[in-house]
Amino acid sequence: MKLYTYFRSSAAYRVRIALHLKGLAFDAVPVHLLQGGGQQHAAAYAALNPNETVPTLDDDGLVLTQSLAIIEYLDETHPAPPLLPGSAADRARIRAIAQTIACDIHPINNLRVLQHLTQAFSLSEAQKNAWYCHWVERGLQTVEKMLARDPRTGRFCHGDAPTLADCCLVPQVFNARRFGCSVAGLSTVLRIGAECEKLDAFARAAPGNQPDAE
Amino acid sequence: MKLYTYFRSSAAYRVRIALHLKGLAFDAVPVHLLQGGGQQHAAAYAALNPNETVPTLDDDGLVLTQSLAIIEYLDETHPAPPLLPGSAADRARIRAIAQTIACDIHPINNLRVLQHLTQAFSLSEAQKNAWYCHWVERGLQTVEKMLARDPRTGRFCHGDAPTLADCCLVPQVFNARRFGCSVAGLSTVLRIGAECEKLDAFARAAPGNQPDAE
Repeated sequence: MKLYTYFRSSAAYRVRIALHLKGLAFDAVPVHLLQGGGQQHAAAYAALNPNETVPTLDDDGLVLTQSLAIIEYLDETHPAPPLLPGSAADRARIRAIAQTIACDIHPINNLRVLQHLTQAFSLSEAQKNAWYCHWVERGLQTVEKMLARDPRTGRFCHGDAPTLADCCLVPQVFNARRFGCSVAGLSTVLRIGAECEKLDAFARAAPGNQPDAE
Repeated sequence: MKLYTYFRSSAAYRVRIALHLKGLAFDAVPVHLLQGGGQQHAAAYAALNPNETVPTLDDDGLVLTQSLAIIEYLDETHPAPPLLPGSAADRARIRAIAQTIACDIHPINNLRVLQHLTQAFSLSEAQKNAWYCHWVERGLQTVEKMLARDPRTGRFCHGDAPTLADCCLVPQVFNARRFGCSVAGLSTVLRIGAECEKLDAFARAAPGNQPDAE
């Protein structure tokens, strides 16, 4: 398997976690999102991934895009350990936590949105960062409520083994810290984040441990 | 089943389509996103859905949030007709198309983002609409590329029966038209949208046919 990735991309980071949790070997193909106007916009890469984003997974010629779709595919084709365990109700909760991060926080703050925002409205660096943290803080407070009040939360987001939800949580917490956003009131989120970081799969997937880390 | 919905919410619209495709009866509970500062922020609703968004599905006391997670749950619990048919590779493609819309277009343009954008940066109505159409046009052009170049595209986004991808496509095309965005170059997207609109399930789910339509 070949993963087109960028060390700081939180969508690529999710898939790296899933691959390591599954124990699947992969070749990392770095796509630098900033160099030369963004290597994701090069014609050869855009032909693979018309969204011009990372990650893209090439599984022996089958080209897959969108981080959550890729992780669901990995879970279907390599079921152990399961990242969507349990009943339909369990999976619905795991997916809802994952999507609260992957649909309602991350896309509003990804690179192309920040680039367009600052250019179109001539924003300062401080205004851009305030925008970033507004959505991270609001979104992670929602996730905190989903986790803190639900008895199905365990050592991890759903039970005592990591799931798709944890694959999404950890990169978002990493970004919150990187941009200096407030993590006040996020005791469950931070506790679970710390549990995840104890696992080798999460450590190996971390931005600082990638071949393209700067 | 009880669906908390708003006629114009494209996330609720997706779930309405899925429910009608499955032939599942449901009671629509309208949540007005604008009246009284937004009924989604009322304490009773926020207790159900901490994200304070629609839709929320109550399936006999089991409360589910996030439109894609709800549709996956419906597909697992009521498998016919399948909205994620075929192989793992088929499902990965269907999910990737759905997520290109539900993660990469819609969240950047949803109500709370538009509200925050216009307030934080004192934008005009014209600037807000330009922001909206920028992401719709860019995103639907990506979807067009995913559909037009792939032999797995059929009468619908994936094959000849509607899937999760179509549940996402039709509400986004509706929004593109509503905001007067350009649909130039979207021949496959528009052809599939027109196919969907021939089906009763899509017609019954449309904003204009909801009890809370204005």
